[in-house]
Amino acid sequence: MTREKRILSGMRPSGKLHLGHLHGVLSNWKRLQDEYQCFFFVADWHALTTNYESPGGIPDFTEDMVLDWLSVGIDPDKATIFVQSDIKEHAELHLLFSMITPVSWLERNPTYKEQQQELKQKDLATYGFLGYPVLQAADILIYKAHKVPVGVDQLPHLELTREIARRFNYLYKETFPVPEPLLAEVPKLPGIDGRKMSKSYGNAIFISEEPDSVRKKVGSMVTDVERPRKQDPGDPEKRCVAFNLHKLYLPEERVREIVEDCKGARIGCVQCKRELADAVNAFLEPIRERRKALQDEQGKVQDILREGAKKARAFAISTMEEVRSALWK
Amino acid sequence: MTREKRILSGMRPSGKLHLGHLHGVLSNWKRLQDEYQCFFFVADWHALTTNYESPGGIPDFTEDMVLDWLSVGIDPDKATIFVQSDIKEHAELHLLFSMITPVSWLERNPTYKEQQQELKQKDLATYGFLGYPVLQAADILIYKAHKVPVGVDQLPHLELTREIARRFNYLYKETFPVPEPLLAEVPKLPGIDGRKMSKSYGNAIFISEEPDSVRKKVGSMVTDVERPRKQDPGDPEKRCVAFNLHKLYLPEERVREIVEDCKGARIGCVQCKRELADAVNAFLEPIRERRKALQDEQGKVQDILREGAKKARAFAISTMEEVRSALWK
Ligand code: SF4
Ligand code: SF4
Repeated sequence: MTREKRILSGMRPSGKLHLGHLHGVLSNWKRLQDEYQCFFFVADWHALTTNYESPGGIPDFTEDMVLDWLSVGIDPDKATIFVQSDIKEHAELHLLFSMITPVSWLERNPTYKEQQQELKQKDLATYGFLGYPVLQAADILIYKAHKVPVGVDQLPHLELTREIARRFNYLYKETFPVPEPLLAEVPKLPGIDGRKMSKSYGNAIFISEEPDSVRKKVGSMVTDVERPRKQDPGDPEKRCVAFNLHKLYLPEERVREIVEDCKGARIGCVQCKRELADAVNAFLEPIRERRKALQDEQGKVQDILREGAKKARAFAISTMEEVRSALWK
Repeated sequence: MTREKRILSGMRPSGKLHLGHLHGVLSNWKRLQDEYQCFFFVADWHALTTNYESPGGIPDFTEDMVLDWLSVGIDPDKATIFVQSDIKEHAELHLLFSMITPVSWLERNPTYKEQQQELKQKDLATYGFLGYPVLQAADILIYKAHKVPVGVDQLPHLELTREIARRFNYLYKETFPVPEPLLAEVPKLPGIDGRKMSKSYGNAIFISEEPDSVRKKVGSMVTDVERPRKQDPGDPEKRCVAFNLHKLYLPEERVREIVEDCKGARIGCVQCKRELADAVNAFLEPIRERRKALQDEQGKVQDILREGAKKARAFAISTMEEVRSALWK
């Protein structure tokens, strides 16, 4: 089977990724790279929309993040892996799209005012922040992507990309496929304190986390609060934060046993989480090893990104030739 | 004297230029190209802000306009002449500037709401229209221009460029000179009906206008309405539209005589305008000849633009390297 349909997906360079990214995005990418022609990119220009005041860390964040991609099995022989700012054509298409995108489309973007509210101490009301869905449209359409993996909350952005594609096709010439959303089911994965796992909350377990640190973090995960002693019966599904990880890292059968033992007050949380930590470590061990091997190969990540940029650029250049001839002729 | 200081100036591709452009912009450029390192460019991306629905004519408009530039004496050996969209780096810098430009700076741009009002049938409220001062800033700053020729009405735009330069220098690293306005005195040049000379009013005399057509147009120029017959004394300065051209195309001494003869009712308007038409034609003759010679050289304009783009690109690339290292490091 040749992989005819194209997929585009990107992540902002945020440094080392955690288990939330792994199960929310990367395991999905791993599946997709076998079925589709995938373009996975580091959205470093996008990172500027919310982080323009201190972009200095972005190159290191990029390296760390791509190391994680590769070590979990995103495969440069299957997918095109590159950095957005290496492909200047995105900026050109963004500029051209800016000319046909009504400001009102951007202002009605539900996340625009929301995020502005949330992050207002950062002085986010920049022209680029208002227009980041236009840049997103350029990212997606320059590869003529057929599908884009999105969460439900990102559907309005993709809708904007679809509208821009339709408008361009209508105004000038049929050029872009109108991309479809690819909704992925994402398992719930809270951080060690029970809130959403997030680097900024300090509650994340990283993909590259060392074994000892995994043990410590898992050991400190919140468990059923109505079960202060082993003798109290617990309810893993309803009240135990750690149990979200059990379901991901232990065999189904063992999970069932734990549920029963916990409900029957036959297992203590310390022991239960020790078992969990071992399972997480067993899962992460080959990933950590690949990561170290990649890190030891001087310049390997940069080589992969350079090769990826070459492939991505060739595609982008050919799209831009079509775009220019549709526009100016 | 080496020309150390740089100047940037551009015109939207509007096809054949008229005498208003010649005396308002081009004669100024001719002076400047001897004193400064000049970058003169065709602002074809800017043309999209107000003309995105039918950009098809832009390549021909570009050719026609550049022919006019060259034929009046804009010299590719002195100035760098190029087309904006040939230098993709403008789009990249525009994108980066978009991240540091508050929307409020753009909304308070006095011409924004004005032009939107004026041209509202065109559905101008696009993201690109709101942001065209950001693109302008990229155009200017990518060549590290020290001075920019502007009319008084464009001062607010240049102020925005200055603010963006200062903000970038402050946030990242001293990179851009803050460009100064170069206010030029522009002679008043009405069209044949007395309104501002403009292609869209149909009242323009073009730089490439053929001799017969010049005679016809000058012959139909509005003269002193309080002077229906030759015997009535006229007042050229106050009431004769044609007289604006007399002052530009006839020797000062002859202009003085005409004023006296007109006031003394000793010269008729038909004869007076015939003399004017001859003077205009004498002035335009060598320009028309150069234009035809250039047109006859197959591909000449495109060659000049390609060479210009090469020079401009080299400069732009070097600026962008500085910009990226200021930003990401
Ligand atoms: S025993 Fe295990 S599943 Fe039950 S609350 Fe403790 S950690 Fe959670
Ligand atoms: S005589 Fe000449 S200057 Fe006097 S009104 Fe007629 S055209 Fe104008």
